[in-house]
Amino acid sequence: MTTRSVVIRQGVLSKNDALAAGLRERFSAAGVFVVNLLSSPGAGKTALLERALRELRARGLRVAALVGDPATDCDARRLARSGAAVRQIDTHGRCHLDAEMVGAELRAFDLAGLDYLFIENVGNLVCPASYDLGQHLRVVLLAVTEGEDKPLKYPATFNSADLVLITKRDLAAACRFERAATHANVRALRPDVELLETSALDGSGLAEFYALLEARRVAALAVNAS
Amino acid sequence: MTTRSVVIRQGVLSKNDALAAGLRERFSAAGVFVVNLLSSPGAGKTALLERALRELRARGLRVAALVGDPATDCDARRLARSGAAVRQIDTHGRCHLDAEMVGAELRAFDLAGLDYLFIENVGNLVCPASYDLGQHLRVVLLAVTEGEDKPLKYPATFNSADLVLITKRDLAAACRFERAATHANVRALRPDVELLETSALDGSGLAEFYALLEARRVAALAVNAS
Repeated sequence: MTTRSVVIRQGVLSKNDALAAGLRERFSAAGVFVVNLLSSPGAGKTALLERALRELRARGLRVAALVGDPATDCDARRLARSGAAVRQIDTHGRCHLDAEMVGAELRAFDLAGLDYLFIENVGNLVCPASYDLGQHLRVVLLAVTEGEDKPLKYPATFNSADLVLITKRDLAAACRFERAATHANVRALRPDVELLETSALDGSGLAEFYALLEARRVAALAVNAS
Repeated sequence: MTTRSVVIRQGVLSKNDALAAGLRERFSAAGVFVVNLLSSPGAGKTALLERALRELRARGLRVAALVGDPATDCDARRLARSGAAVRQIDTHGRCHLDAEMVGAELRAFDLAGLDYLFIENVGNLVCPASYDLGQHLRVVLLAVTEGEDKPLKYPATFNSADLVLITKRDLAAACRFERAATHANVRALRPDVELLETSALDGSGLAEFYALLEARRVAALAVNAS
């Protein structure tokens, strides 16, 4: 990168950080816990959310989702079948969501009437890591099919994760998932991160995921209320 | 994006295009056919290349590889076991390879002594599509595990593909691969693109892949020689 492009990039990021800080205050004041989901394309963010929106609603929680893709609105249509409020952000080819895009869509939601807002980022293990969206929790998904080396190759995404979800564990045997090496590589980047293995198909690991979300939500709101 | 950042981005891309055009002339003059491989993280670029480098060498072809990752050199070490000349580009967190990075590594190769140079791009379905690397052939890999909707969601990558390889076909049954929908979505973006289903594990589809590469290589060099 040239010096000039580095300076401009830093300017873009500090502007984003300021917007994201404002969003986080707004989310906390409204009492809504915001979760930013990052992964490769096809790691299962939408499949996880389809099930989580439905199952959290069944537990009486008020949930909504904001979905980013470089094109199409197919994910929003899939997620809306859960009955939750869902909005699509079509980034028109851009490789990540930023705080400005998120802020522009918030008028579609009654934030004070929500317990959770899930933001499904663009499928990309590089660029979304640089953009704070004002979330309370950053969740990185890694499918068992992707290979044990991905945390090492995409450090900026994994070393900023609050929770790592290994997804598609139902395929672990079929794709010869290297469990020990994968866990070790996640821990190498982020030693104390929470790590769960899940399957949106057979539901394994999801009760633990919801319990962890609830614990984090209650803690975040207690801090805000105090 | 602001007007200013759009202008700067266009400047970066036109500078890259000029460098790439120079690289392509240099590759053609040296008689080396250059293949740029794009995909999501974990779609199997390295597994495919591991096997292709070995098997093309066994057929008497002179092959080399240049591998890009945001961090680590583990792919280059894997590929070097084939006996081919391999160089790693550590992009230090950047989300794509560009023509300047490729040009800077070429001194490591005797281009005139090669039949093929494979460039394994950073695993990312968005950003690498904008950067011409001077290749003769742009190959996009899509694993059966990623979902049938990916061509629609990442149009810029698929509509610039010369060849689409569906990878990991050995996992098709286990992950309920939607073959008809996937093929239809690829064709929706790129109607006449070559499309092969492959597995680097059981080797299916690879003979067809090598035959297609050879046909394209011979055609590209004949144009250059005429």
